[in-house]
Amino acid sequence: MGGELRFSEFFSHGAGLTTSLDALLHCEHSGIQHICVVQSPVFGRMLLLDGMVMLTEWDEFIYHEMLVHPALFLLPSPRRVLVIGGGDGGTVREVLRHPSIEHVDLVEIDPRVIAVAQSYFPTVAAGFSDPRVHLHHADGAEFVRSAPSGFYDAVFVDSTDPTGIAESLFGEAFYSECQRVLHATGVLALQSESPLHPVYCQTLPRVHRLLRPLFRHVASYLAPIPTYPTGIWSFTLASRHYHPLEDFSPTNAQQRMECLSGKLRYYTAELHRAAFALPGFVQELISEGLAQPAP
Amino acid sequence: MGGELRFSEFFSHGAGLTTSLDALLHCEHSGIQHICVVQSPVFGRMLLLDGMVMLTEWDEFIYHEMLVHPALFLLPSPRRVLVIGGGDGGTVREVLRHPSIEHVDLVEIDPRVIAVAQSYFPTVAAGFSDPRVHLHHADGAEFVRSAPSGFYDAVFVDSTDPTGIAESLFGEAFYSECQRVLHATGVLALQSESPLHPVYCQTLPRVHRLLRPLFRHVASYLAPIPTYPTGIWSFTLASRHYHPLEDFSPTNAQQRMECLSGKLRYYTAELHRAAFALPGFVQELISEGLAQPAP
Repeated sequence: MGGELRFSEFFSHGAGLTTSLDALLHCEHSGIQHICVVQSPVFGRMLLLDGMVMLTEWDEFIYHEMLVHPALFLLPSPRRVLVIGGGDGGTVREVLRHPSIEHVDLVEIDPRVIAVAQSYFPTVAAGFSDPRVHLHHADGAEFVRSAPSGFYDAVFVDSTDPTGIAESLFGEAFYSECQRVLHATGVLALQSESPLHPVYCQTLPRVHRLLRPLFRHVASYLAPIPTYPTGIWSFTLASRHYHPLEDFSPTNAQQRMECLSGKLRYYTAELHRAAFALPGFVQELISEGLAQPAP
Repeated sequence: MGGELRFSEFFSHGAGLTTSLDALLHCEHSGIQHICVVQSPVFGRMLLLDGMVMLTEWDEFIYHEMLVHPALFLLPSPRRVLVIGGGDGGTVREVLRHPSIEHVDLVEIDPRVIAVAQSYFPTVAAGFSDPRVHLHHADGAEFVRSAPSGFYDAVFVDSTDPTGIAESLFGEAFYSECQRVLHATGVLALQSESPLHPVYCQTLPRVHRLLRPLFRHVASYLAPIPTYPTGIWSFTLASRHYHPLEDFSPTNAQQRMECLSGKLRYYTAELHRAAFALPGFVQELISEGLAQPAP
């Protein structure tokens, strides 16, 4: 007899991820959102925002490597990077692995996410003390509006789902500002939700509809993220200059991977190309969405 | 107030998949295993064997397409196929899409799985009435021992986890018989569990260790299967003659895809190549396993 501590996240109609918990390590309302840290026997520590998994120690490497490295290995020598969201620090950690990086702006709306990540996820929030990193407690959409034109080589949108505080990070005006603050050869990379999610699967075609008028090249790729809704996740790259595949050199990426600080566990030069090969149903989701009139 | 019908499958320490249920449609003990069919609002009908998800209407297309088509599109004109396990019929359905197929032996140890699939999953068990299909209610390992040498162009091992009734389907003796019943240019394809599973991740390196002495070419590939443990799944191809990538012609596959009966939703010729690009941690899992002495 006895109780059990358990966390479950339902992405639709009571379906989703579940895990027993060893401990509830932290729980607060930051004024913006509920922030919890729990300990799972399988997933390790988990960061929950408003009851949704933001990361787990077990599989965060896949998400962060796949958000960052396809864009950065496409660029010959990325120097200046903007990260919108991503207060846990995982995206910044991956960015800093590239020795060419000189300047990283991280814009996180909720300073408590950063503080909690620093306390409970030191290996994720590893880069915040790096002198190249500049923290900004601000709304991402507002920050890009006041940022200088053509400044960044890469912009990463490491947002929560396209609802609530993150809604403005999936809009036309925001993408237009991202394009403006990027150098002419810069790259925008964003998480574009799960193509199997009953509702948010529409994010992927919507992102294409909004980005294609702004960027010459827009392409999406997938990675498995077991603890995210449906376990399969899409990312989208956009650039006015570089084609994510035709301008990608596996040989160059291979050489540069030797010079990264730390070792990657998911991304490889071969996987870069492979991740852009979309399953039939995902290709259809995008092309059907593009055929529809804008909402 | 009130109760709720719910199914959860834990792959380790209370972690896994959960869903509310609309209905419990069928439940029996076949003498071999518990067979249940439940209705989930998100996953549709689900087939459970001994409490574990065998398939759901929602994502079975990924598993079945990815078990079958990489092997069959590698062969120029597959005619004779052996399916071990797979009593739900999904693998046979995909095999029969190829117009060159003349003869399919399906060996399922539990006839009740076939009967339940025919009643509750008619779109999955679609091929059992096809005159090319021959059902055998037998133990897979025993069936291959008495099958003629060099007869099959492809053998598919569509098994449950490597424990209990399926344990013999992951052994050296079984693989050796599979090699014997295959034509010299034939291909063996099997599900090799999740590379992220805390225990069964060892299946993938073990399969390589056992198959490499028997086949010149052994290569694994991945696909996301959201309702399987960890949501990421590995498959392994083995052939004495064909290299799964070097001997694969995307142009030929593209042409043949036009002549398939029915439309594929996951597999594409581009994805064939892409699926074999393994993440770093999976490459390491395999090479570390190969470096270990045989168990």
